[in-house]
Amino acid sequence: MQAEIITIGDEILIGQIVDSNSAFISKELNKIGVSVYQITSIQDDREHILKSLKEAGERSSVVIITGGLGPTKDDVTKHTLCEFFEDELVRDNAVLSHIEELFKKYITTPISDLNREQAMVPSKSTVLHNEFGTAPGIWMKKDKTTFISLPGVPYEMKGLMIKSVLPKIIKEYHRPHIVHKTIMTYGLGESAIAEKLEDWENNLPSFIKFAYLPNIGRVRLRLSAKGEDKEALIAGIEKQVKKLYPLIGDIIYGEEEEDGNVEKQIGTLLTNKKMTLATAESFTGGSIAEHITAVPGASNYFKGSMVCYATAVKVNVLGVPQELIDKYSVVSEEVAIAMANNVKSKLGTDFAIATTGNAGPTKGDSDAEVGTVYIAVSTPNGTFAQKFVMGRHRERVVKKSVNKAFELLYKEILNF
Amino acid sequence: MQAEIITIGDEILIGQIVDSNSAFISKELNKIGVSVYQITSIQDDREHILKSLKEAGERSSVVIITGGLGPTKDDVTKHTLCEFFEDELVRDNAVLSHIEELFKKYITTPISDLNREQAMVPSKSTVLHNEFGTAPGIWMKKDKTTFISLPGVPYEMKGLMIKSVLPKIIKEYHRPHIVHKTIMTYGLGESAIAEKLEDWENNLPSFIKFAYLPNIGRVRLRLSAKGEDKEALIAGIEKQVKKLYPLIGDIIYGEEEEDGNVEKQIGTLLTNKKMTLATAESFTGGSIAEHITAVPGASNYFKGSMVCYATAVKVNVLGVPQELIDKYSVVSEEVAIAMANNVKSKLGTDFAIATTGNAGPTKGDSDAEVGTVYIAVSTPNGTFAQKFVMGRHRERVVKKSVNKAFELLYKEILNF
Repeated sequence: MQAEIITIGDEILIGQIVDSNSAFISKELNKIGVSVYQITSIQDDREHILKSLKEAGERSSVVIITGGLGPTKDDVTKHTLCEFFEDELVRDNAVLSHIEELFKKYITTPISDLNREQAMVPSKSTVLHNEFGTAPGIWMKKDKTTFISLPGVPYEMKGLMIKSVLPKIIKEYHRPHIVHKTIMTYGLGESAIAEKLEDWENNLPSFIKFAYLPNIGRVRLRLSAKGEDKEALIAGIEKQVKKLYPLIGDIIYGEEEEDGNVEKQIGTLLTNKKMTLATAESFTGGSIAEHITAVPGASNYFKGSMVCYATAVKVNVLGVPQELIDKYSVVSEEVAIAMANNVKSKLGTDFAIATTGNAGPTKGDSDAEVGTVYIAVSTPNGTFAQKFVMGRHRERVVKKSVNKAFELLYKEILNF
Repeated sequence: MQAEIITIGDEILIGQIVDSNSAFISKELNKIGVSVYQITSIQDDREHILKSLKEAGERSSVVIITGGLGPTKDDVTKHTLCEFFEDELVRDNAVLSHIEELFKKYITTPISDLNREQAMVPSKSTVLHNEFGTAPGIWMKKDKTTFISLPGVPYEMKGLMIKSVLPKIIKEYHRPHIVHKTIMTYGLGESAIAEKLEDWENNLPSFIKFAYLPNIGRVRLRLSAKGEDKEALIAGIEKQVKKLYPLIGDIIYGEEEEDGNVEKQIGTLLTNKKMTLATAESFTGGSIAEHITAVPGASNYFKGSMVCYATAVKVNVLGVPQELIDKYSVVSEEVAIAMANNVKSKLGTDFAIATTGNAGPTKGDSDAEVGTVYIAVSTPNGTFAQKFVMGRHRERVVKKSVNKAFELLYKEILNF
């Protein structure tokens, strides 16, 4: 059982937007045992759409199409779908009422004929209710393939996937189970890990696939098993994971079932231990706080952050002594430690993270080379800071530092 | 002259990573007049790779392949490329020296045979130097098509694109010009704008394409022109843009040549006016600061942010009077205004943004319904706050509020 995704829209092909819809759809399909064979991004162009629909339909049993359903002229998807199905557009009264209701409730501009036209659907299609928007989802069969067309607006697409598409696929298709497990590691590169795992990898059973996913400052190792017996797949993966620990246990910092990340794990630990966290951020500019608060429930343990971008704010608001900065420079171990101590005491938390450094492009308020950063972690037992050299790429310096800060904190929290 | 992108890697097809590489490559190709016809994401699978290479090569004159060049077992791209080109792998000594040097300088683990194997390249290929990593880029011709294989690690891919691939395409191919202009609007939906622009749109010259790009709380309008005479394209677009203003000038807040955004525009304005900014964030959790500091040069105007996630921090650290919170609730116009005033005065800035609200999933420290937010903007002339109801989707409530805050601030800064 395999699926394909076709995303329609010039904006992807000119690089104006990143196609995050496909990642969401792929992840959700995988969870219910449907593999995605190919993702194809194409233009809002009749011939290109027809050709892609035909080819995908020949290869896969389910084809999910996103984008091209808006009310305006540049969207040709619906008419082209109709042509492909040799069908005609008819008015769906339930969709029309829904559109009218949405306008009455939420939209200040008056409803127009363009909006009403979104209630036109192919006559042979099953309409999927789009709770959050005016363009409905469309479910159609042609030969042995199901084609599902969804709007490209991410939260509308997500709502339709969760509420309509996935339940309908589960009901109508027999699917194998797919089980993934990802092991998160830090401190060693891809090839160094591969050498340690060579024998283990060569002896993996054939139903388990293994992949290295290097990321900024860490490598994730993914095991995937596919088959009919879910329990056997889980047991098979667990058996292999157990064998991993004696080989690389020192660099493993967690396992994730799906989209777990270290900030979520930190959140779970802090919630369970009823302990709290604050951050004081210089060059990371609020990124650490943003990552922490992206986890639902963060208010249970996160008190706040003092983003001290300017040196004067570090002194006047966070209370870092000016003498310390004069003596050691603003990018220093001593300042990082003072920042962590002060934010912990001001906000009254158990843990604190602080960052000071130079992400570039220019040197800023200190003499530190671009890429030089200090990360401090404060715990109930004390405070320490470490120096890192993160390269010269601004965005990357920030990302690596955010990851590193969570890694350092995570290891500390485990001790409490 | 058209190109295609093939991204290789199971991690995209199981949704573990979002394919941001393709957006970058598309944008860069567009800038030099190369249209991207299709983006195809496929598995690390020999047959699938061969089939996709063949099909793309028949359609397009340049095919850029990313991913699948790592040192480990799951990467089959290089061998498959070799097979496709009917070529063999040979050692490239320059690449080998580079790998050895990278290990000596930056990597603490010893170099291995797997690393050294990355110096093996197809004998007929032109090797592209990868300054930032061990896997080189590969440039090969087959029939009339150029195939370019790049590593999937984003910053390595970007370095290769900028330093090698784009200059080589510019040198070897005659290309038309492509000119884009995007008009950013807020306050009206896609279809309401479309109605106002119907006549204008119908009268566009054939060399200009027009598209609506709706996003959270705003709609971008994109004009694209393609042809031989760059000056004529620019003039043609400008002529149409000028006609737009009498029709929808009241909702336009900016024009972007390429990847401009409102926080970048705010940065430019503040830098020119030598004025400064601070933020006080509750439920946005540092997101506003993170967006501001993502703009290089933000230290010229951004002083810092007080992220007051917990109510106690709003009182004890930011100095919002407890009585105000008791009287009006923590999610209120009054508290938003106090937050903006206090952070502006504590950090000594000209402007400030403050947010307080409830992003969900639960009600938190206030009785406010999930989705209720107040955004305050403080200027040298005074402070105001507005209430918004942003829906029930946590991530979306934050994103909409961040966008809205920038929109409100932007309009104010224009007055100074």
